Amino acid sequence: MSDKRKVIIDCDTGVDDALAILLCLKNLDVVGITTVGGNVGLENTQRNTRYVTEVAGRTDVPVFAGYARPLLVPLQDASYVHGAGGLGNIQVPEPQKPLEKQHAVDFLIETFMTRDDVSLITLGPLTNIAHALLKEPRLVHRIPEILTMGGSTTWGNATPAAEFNIFVDPEAAKLVFESGIPIRMVGLNATRQQRASLEVYEQIKAMDSPAAQLAAKLFLDREGKPGRNSFCDACAVMWWIDSQVICKSAMMHVVVETQGEFTRGMTLCDGRGFQANRREVDMEHEKLYEPLPKGLEPNVEVALELDQARFTQVLLDTMRRYSEG
Amino acid sequence: MSDKRKVIIDCDTGVDDALAILLCLKNLDVVGITTVGGNVGLENTQRNTRYVTEVAGRTDVPVFAGYARPLLVPLQDASYVHGAGGLGNIQVPEPQKPLEKQHAVDFLIETFMTRDDVSLITLGPLTNIAHALLKEPRLVHRIPEILTMGGSTTWGNATPAAEFNIFVDPEAAKLVFESGIPIRMVGLNATRQQRASLEVYEQIKAMDSPAAQLAAKLFLDREGKPGRNSFCDACAVMWWIDSQVICKSAMMHVVVETQGEFTRGMTLCDGRGFQANRREVDMEHEKLYEPLPKGLEPNVEVALELDQARFTQVLLDTMRRYSEG
Amino acid sequence: MSDKRKVIIDCDTGVDDALAILLCLKNLDVVGITTVGGNVGLENTQRNTRYVTEVAGRTDVPVFAGYARPLLVPLQDASYVHGAGGLGNIQVPEPQKPLEKQHAVDFLIETFMTRDDVSLITLGPLTNIAHALLKEPRLVHRIPEILTMGGSTTWGNATPAAEFNIFVDPEAAKLVFESGIPIRMVGLNATRQQRASLEVYEQIKAMDSPAAQLAAKLFLDREGKPGRNSFCDACAVMWWIDSQVICKSAMMHVVVETQGEFTRGMTLCDGRGFQANRREVDMEHEKLYEPLPKGLEPNVEVALELDQARFTQVLLDTMRRYSEG
Amino acid sequence: MSDKRKVIIDCDTGVDDALAILLCLKNLDVVGITTVGGNVGLENTQRNTRYVTEVAGRTDVPVFAGYARPLLVPLQDASYVHGAGGLGNIQVPEPQKPLEKQHAVDFLIETFMTRDDVSLITLGPLTNIAHALLKEPRLVHRIPEILTMGGSTTWGNATPAAEFNIFVDPEAAKLVFESGIPIRMVGLNATRQQRASLEVYEQIKAMDSPAAQLAAKLFLDREGKPGRNSFCDACAVMWWIDSQVICKSAMMHVVVETQGEFTRGMTLCDGRGFQANRREVDMEHEKLYEPLPKGLEPNVEVALELDQARFTQVLLDTMRRYSEG
Repeated sequence: MSDKRKVIIDCDTGVDDALAILLCLKNLDVVGITTVGGNVGLENTQRNTRYVTEVAGRTDVPVFAGYARPLLVPLQDASYVHGAGGLGNIQVPEPQKPLEKQHAVDFLIETFMTRDDVSLITLGPLTNIAHALLKEPRLVHRIPEILTMGGSTTWGNATPAAEFNIFVDPEAAKLVFESGIPIRMVGLNATRQQRASLEVYEQIKAMDSPAAQLAAKLFLDREGKPGRNSFCDACAVMWWIDSQVICKSAMMHVVVETQGEFTRGMTLCDGRGFQANRREVDMEHEKLYEPLPKGLEPNVEVALELDQARFTQVLLDTMRRYSEG
Repeated sequence: MSDKRKVIIDCDTGVDDALAILLCLKNLDVVGITTVGGNVGLENTQRNTRYVTEVAGRTDVPVFAGYARPLLVPLQDASYVHGAGGLGNIQVPEPQKPLEKQHAVDFLIETFMTRDDVSLITLGPLTNIAHALLKEPRLVHRIPEILTMGGSTTWGNATPAAEFNIFVDPEAAKLVFESGIPIRMVGLNATRQQRASLEVYEQIKAMDSPAAQLAAKLFLDREGKPGRNSFCDACAVMWWIDSQVICKSAMMHVVVETQGEFTRGMTLCDGRGFQANRREVDMEHEKLYEPLPKGLEPNVEVALELDQARFTQVLLDTMRRYSEG
Repeated sequence: MSDKRKVIIDCDTGVDDALAILLCLKNLDVVGITTVGGNVGLENTQRNTRYVTEVAGRTDVPVFAGYARPLLVPLQDASYVHGAGGLGNIQVPEPQKPLEKQHAVDFLIETFMTRDDVSLITLGPLTNIAHALLKEPRLVHRIPEILTMGGSTTWGNATPAAEFNIFVDPEAAKLVFESGIPIRMVGLNATRQQRASLEVYEQIKAMDSPAAQLAAKLFLDREGKPGRNSFCDACAVMWWIDSQVICKSAMMHVVVETQGEFTRGMTLCDGRGFQANRREVDMEHEKLYEPLPKGLEPNVEVALELDQARFTQVLLDTMRRYSEG
Repeated sequence: MSDKRKVIIDCDTGVDDALAILLCLKNLDVVGITTVGGNVGLENTQRNTRYVTEVAGRTDVPVFAGYARPLLVPLQDASYVHGAGGLGNIQVPEPQKPLEKQHAVDFLIETFMTRDDVSLITLGPLTNIAHALLKEPRLVHRIPEILTMGGSTTWGNATPAAEFNIFVDPEAAKLVFESGIPIRMVGLNATRQQRASLEVYEQIKAMDSPAAQLAAKLFLDREGKPGRNSFCDACAVMWWIDSQVICKSAMMHVVVETQGEFTRGMTLCDGRGFQANRREVDMEHEKLYEPLPKGLEPNVEVALELDQARFTQVLLDTMRRYSEG
């Protein structure tokens, strides 16, 4: 296992988190999973997470509960997308695997203050991460990199401007994005390029491992048909599972808007310099924006293009390996 | 003349306004031109406008001065782009054609309250238009349509979020966009698709009319080389000169952000429903966003694609007609 | 008449404006009255104003209509205080005296740009004044002083923070307060010190002039009893009618809050330096706040104490003079 | 000791916190002291706190360190008032008494979740308290009451609108004020009524206990003269030491403004209903504001008047008891 990338996953396990966790447990060295209120309430996200590790046969991975609500505002969940329990139509039984007693934030602080070889993946609102940075400010020099599913270079989903994970806790996101920790951002602009097909669903459904059976059920929409499609979190973790799934990215200056009558929760990506480097798109702006205004240095590596075929290939291959044991 | 569309142009004549006015004077029936502070101060924009009408041989078109500054905030001009005088390297002499004595806003009110056949083109900050709506609230039922150069569905230029015309006076833009008057918006996302070439420059330069000679000079950058490229306002007016230049558009819900730590002056376009109608792009969101949330009805027809070849053809053809007299 | 102070009154004639106008018409040289939407809509405020001048036998004073709504937001009137028509229970007939055709803002600009001897009193939202400053920026050097009823050093009425006139159009108020024109502010902190008594009401009611009869009716509350009490606008105009009615004032740094979750429309008065000058109140802060931080120079003379007895005396005396002809 | 009120003190020990702690250690049953960054950085506030307990001969009282910085924004300290170290001119040696290892927030949670007999006093920014409420939401039903030094019904000190403790971390204050926990607020409006005199200073200086000697030094200003005067935190704790020191208070609706161009950090107290109950002050507003608008129910008991003589008497008496051992 030692050649796999070591990660902590912080998540709010709904449908797409579940698929992402299955992908990570097989392809990465998951040191622990911390949970947060987001897609659904913390009670469900921590239970769903324990359930997924159990189904994957990985009860050795510790699961921690963190914050139930955002820094400043009440939680607005997405149960209208993920179902009341968070895993669509799946009735999640109470897992045998217990929740760790340590608070998620204390586990994050302890791990990153004592180990140098662990990176961080976030698949939910950045509440836990922000609290960790506030409680232990030295963490900004200890977390090597954060891979985050969140935001967008274009349009949102929770609002016209904002993607759900950032919208839920913009203040937390702002603290993390301004922390100076290197960030890779996989936003809706990239995840919308991923699409599932009936064929992929049927291939997974035909596999006999519990993990594959769970994965197949994640494709089912509210009517029980294989129509669910947006596995945003699974797209994000691919960057560290097979870096070629994200086939184009760029360093951009990204800020999180927390004010705004209409734009609260938006990840504003400064695309001006980026365009200027592609003469065929926007040659005339090169003069204006090169160099960029002071203070707008690129701080985030933003995923721009996703290789849909390769995503499918890694997904199917991983599910096959679950069935092989 | 009677078969040409009748328009009033409200502008802050800098480089691209000048080219747009030349295009309009030959292809539309320009009832009057009102000026506003924007690219440069009002003193220059009204003088430049008179100069352009004079060069075009159209001193019959009345030019009015309006507001020198935005509704709430001081003017931040764009003289760093358009030069101190507003027309790049061109030294604009004081024109013989006088400025009308009537205030621009009073001319707008008088015209739209008494005529049914005139439309409005805006090429600068929407200050004058907002004042007209405030002074004569019945105008919202009297202006048939506004074609505006401003905003963006993607990135800005004045800031990462905001296009210059909207950024300069966001409150005015908000009043106009929320007025209920039908709006066509040509933003940076469309105008960035237009590019000038050395060949086009040389063809225009070879024409002997004063209008063509002025147009050619507008291509010159600060070093006097034909490198200037972004004729945003010229792109916008094309929609009413030859509707096929804007070869794709969509009705979208558009709002103007006036608050925001980073997003003031942004035209936030709700692209979610739009994407949902293109299954190949974003099939999974169709379920979420159809129908759109109440209150997010499309209110603006947004230009999405510009036919660069056709733009060039109309431009060259118009310049040729100036030379033919 | 030439020894009386010459003023223009800008008002939104409700109950207390009406009493203030009666006071001014007898004690000041009223050059004109401009009206604005506020306590009730513009249709009523201009009509009520004409009615009051008619009742006072002063149809020679021209009345102008200005803006019907605030700069940025819809009008929230105070008809719940002033009655639907604006003058409480009084059924105002359509006056014979006509409304002037000139727009209020154009009259303000014309007067102040051509005369040096006129001051300005404002008794309503500052919408018209802001528009005048925007349309003719040189006015900031032409208006000698503004006496305004608005704001508060303590609590508001429209909200816990904001007084009605400022709350209705905070953006206009901000433009005026930041203009540099000398301002005297009579806020709720001062006007709340004025109280009417049944005795005063009965004295006025016993006078036989139409003006006194109107004044008496202004005391009547919704049940027709003499319980109405807050003649804010009358308090304000007293400062220029008899300066000793405002028996204490101080130069303070005053700003208008236009943002804020709770404080929009507040006139924030910096009382720190003021306290520091009264050792018995706050001796320890003298060290901290002397001199005041840069940029917080006093810009408004704020009324602090009102001589209730003298107010009554001037009021009764004026009403008596109406009856004497 | 069992008849004394049991409290936890959360503080940012500068000059006035030190005096308040001395008062509490003799008159209340102090279960523990938690510290926060505020007047000066956390390193100094926790050290100063340990030092004060040591000087008071109360090393049995545990001292905990909490958060070094506010929820969302960097710490702006008040070392310009309290000196770089926080205790004015006093050079504070490293105390022998150690800092507890437990985090302040975890101590707060543990204590209030397991005990029913402890109340909370806060003398600094409300950062620790907000974090405790976020980490253990059930605390809102477990903390019986909070006595807080912070805010103002009138003017601020950090800014014209905001008192320092609230200004430093408005988001934390908003969370606490909106939590539903009963709050007693002693703001600048009350603490400004407290004044020290040279006579009191000399009486304390003549006492020979280390606590009295420390207290006397707290009176010394930067020049070493007994001119320091504002013992805000000492005023606040008096309410629970001798309730008659706060000789007038009222239940008011209080909110914390976190936005605002000028009013961030203000405690906006709705004084309208309060005035309405005092006919002699503001009789006419009774009609308007009774009952108060929905949602503006009183939520804070606000100190209005302080008995300066009694404050002095309790202070001197306490210092005498330190000297008696």
